[in-house]
Amino acid sequence: MEAQLPLNTEGKPIQCKAAVCRDSGEPLVIEDVVVAPPMSGEARIRIICTSLCHSDLTFWKAKGPRGLFPRILGHEAVGVVESVGEDVSEVKKGDMVIPVFMAECLECVDCKSKKSNLCSNVPFRMSGFMPRHESSRFTDLSGETIHHFLFVSSFSQYTVVDVVHLTKISDPSSLPPNRACLLSCGVSTGVGAAWKTAEVEAGSTVAIFGLGSIGLAVAEGARLCGAAKIIGVDLNPQKFEIGKKFGLTDFVNPGECGDKPVSQVIKEMTDGGADYCFECVGMASLVHEAYASCRKGWGKTIVVGVDQLGSNLTFSSGEVLTSGKCIMGSLFGGLKPKSHIPILLKRYIDKELQLDDFVTHEMELEDINRAFDLLQAGQCLRCVIWMDKKF
Amino acid sequence: MEAQLPLNTEGKPIQCKAAVCRDSGEPLVIEDVVVAPPMSGEARIRIICTSLCHSDLTFWKAKGPRGLFPRILGHEAVGVVESVGEDVSEVKKGDMVIPVFMAECLECVDCKSKKSNLCSNVPFRMSGFMPRHESSRFTDLSGETIHHFLFVSSFSQYTVVDVVHLTKISDPSSLPPNRACLLSCGVSTGVGAAWKTAEVEAGSTVAIFGLGSIGLAVAEGARLCGAAKIIGVDLNPQKFEIGKKFGLTDFVNPGECGDKPVSQVIKEMTDGGADYCFECVGMASLVHEAYASCRKGWGKTIVVGVDQLGSNLTFSSGEVLTSGKCIMGSLFGGLKPKSHIPILLKRYIDKELQLDDFVTHEMELEDINRAFDLLQAGQCLRCVIWMDKKF
Repeated sequence: MEAQLPLNTEGKPIQCKAAVCRDSGEPLVIEDVVVAPPMSGEARIRIICTSLCHSDLTFWKAKGPRGLFPRILGHEAVGVVESVGEDVSEVKKGDMVIPVFMAECLECVDCKSKKSNLCSNVPFRMSGFMPRHESSRFTDLSGETIHHFLFVSSFSQYTVVDVVHLTKISDPSSLPPNRACLLSCGVSTGVGAAWKTAEVEAGSTVAIFGLGSIGLAVAEGARLCGAAKIIGVDLNPQKFEIGKKFGLTDFVNPGECGDKPVSQVIKEMTDGGADYCFECVGMASLVHEAYASCRKGWGKTIVVGVDQLGSNLTFSSGEVLTSGKCIMGSLFGGLKPKSHIPILLKRYIDKELQLDDFVTHEMELEDINRAFDLLQAGQCLRCVIWMDKKF
Repeated sequence: MEAQLPLNTEGKPIQCKAAVCRDSGEPLVIEDVVVAPPMSGEARIRIICTSLCHSDLTFWKAKGPRGLFPRILGHEAVGVVESVGEDVSEVKKGDMVIPVFMAECLECVDCKSKKSNLCSNVPFRMSGFMPRHESSRFTDLSGETIHHFLFVSSFSQYTVVDVVHLTKISDPSSLPPNRACLLSCGVSTGVGAAWKTAEVEAGSTVAIFGLGSIGLAVAEGARLCGAAKIIGVDLNPQKFEIGKKFGLTDFVNPGECGDKPVSQVIKEMTDGGADYCFECVGMASLVHEAYASCRKGWGKTIVVGVDQLGSNLTFSSGEVLTSGKCIMGSLFGGLKPKSHIPILLKRYIDKELQLDDFVTHEMELEDINRAFDLLQAGQCLRCVIWMDKKF
């Protein structure tokens, strides 16, 4: 797929369409923005497809320190490099790339270790600016600065991303962009949580609390790892049918458990508790239910959902000591973007990893507020937005 | 070492000396007790050596549901089988055995799994009776029932233990009983926490909160695993010199850190945090400090200390999600008694595992209250009590 870039934009500001969030919870405004050329270590990307992830909703509604406006949201995407700044050799004009909110500098002790995906040189943090230069590449037509989001800001036809946040796709020809973009955040997070963080073993039992895209991607990851029983927990009974496509074998509707705690139901289904329990909603109470649902002796509780700022998880000291269970979190599924996304892409091309069924809607930038509505109402899995109809 | 048992006791009650705890916190009373013959699945053991462990203190002082009196405490011991009940083939009269509060039935899914040491057939629990028959084998001379403790009750010249709680020593000739008894609880717990629960890697960094026998045994375990830096944290500065015998390389006295949190000091000493942090005191606040001292990306916090009933551990949901750290407990160091104690015994015989320096005092049953005083005052590591001077 040959990139079709306009000529003569390199080194110059680009004016393009973006969906700008002007204030907390307000409909995004499709407007012209100016995207400055990339600075050193950065690349300017023409976004081909972007999809909505739940964190977009969270930060769209955010008030207080997390709410930075005006802002260009969006962090799940695929695009083509339009130009690069100084000292960039890893990608070049025309490369297809997947931007990821997690960095991989390839040089620090974490990036060199097999045990961590938390780059030390560019640690994960909340910011409204570029990671290396602490400034924005976006302005509106009045000259006002627009904030970045998660170092990606993909709800814009062009964006600037630091190379540490870019994964190059070496063979884009066999890869539809409306699938590739899913690996930029949500699906990778879920699949990775099962594959890399939990290291789900073949024949094991898995319980997943919350069957949004992340939870379903955990099921897909567990399926790929060979789990024998994959139990989904969700208040929406329709999720069982949907989940079967991603390997779900059983379903628990907490609304239909009567007086029995969900953990009790899961223990009965798994002869004592699931080997791996994933919390994919972002609610402390569900983490506790997941922990209670875990098999003693070796059960792992994996926190995948993003809870409100300041929320706590409380466990009985005696149970932690005597249960043999462990508690851990999973950020971007424990994956190193540059190292592991290519593996997932290959598994998709090899028809092992299921991506197609995550995409329930495709639309254009003009319809982005409808995508927000669908996600908020739980009526979609992934809405893919085509930013470039000509691609 | 040939067992020298009195004749004709099999099937009959044995009258012998025991240290009986008559009420919470009161000095133990050395008195004659009657030990009934073992029932099916049980063995009656002549205790050779027993040593004091901190849990003896905890339950000696316990009030409420944990305080069952009169009771024969003691759970760290070695002894010789005097007789066995029906259906016992695993041990026979004359065998040297190490009783352990944790069971290993060898048959359940946990005992057959490499991942768990929490026997499902005989799960760990608090009880004042024998595990299989829910009755006591001890009475005093007035006929009053005396409670068991942790399925061992080794502060008696004779006790009855279920075979699931017994580890047979296949070659006792090279093994001094005043060393073997240490593997019955404390030293195994500490060494196992590093070896089996944390799986400390060669070259790694370790921080240990609390340098009692368990904490020092964690150091010893970490040393055996090849840890490069083993930091002890204790308010008693003398513990550094003691700890060096067990591999301690560095020391932090929280009383001398000024305004700096201990976790900050450890992070500075370890270039970002220790790979493995062990809490060996039993204080929630120290678990939090241990968690804060852990290296992001892969740090493991291991809870080894027994906190008060009802105490909780609270973690920031966001930190659990994003830190890459994991929290786990370690009961009996994650060891399966029958499978792993023989390995530790061999390492002692091969002069790899250090046991000698744990024994700071040796005494006889008459002096047991002094042993309690020493342990409470933190003036000993292990006090070994010889129950059978003729041995």
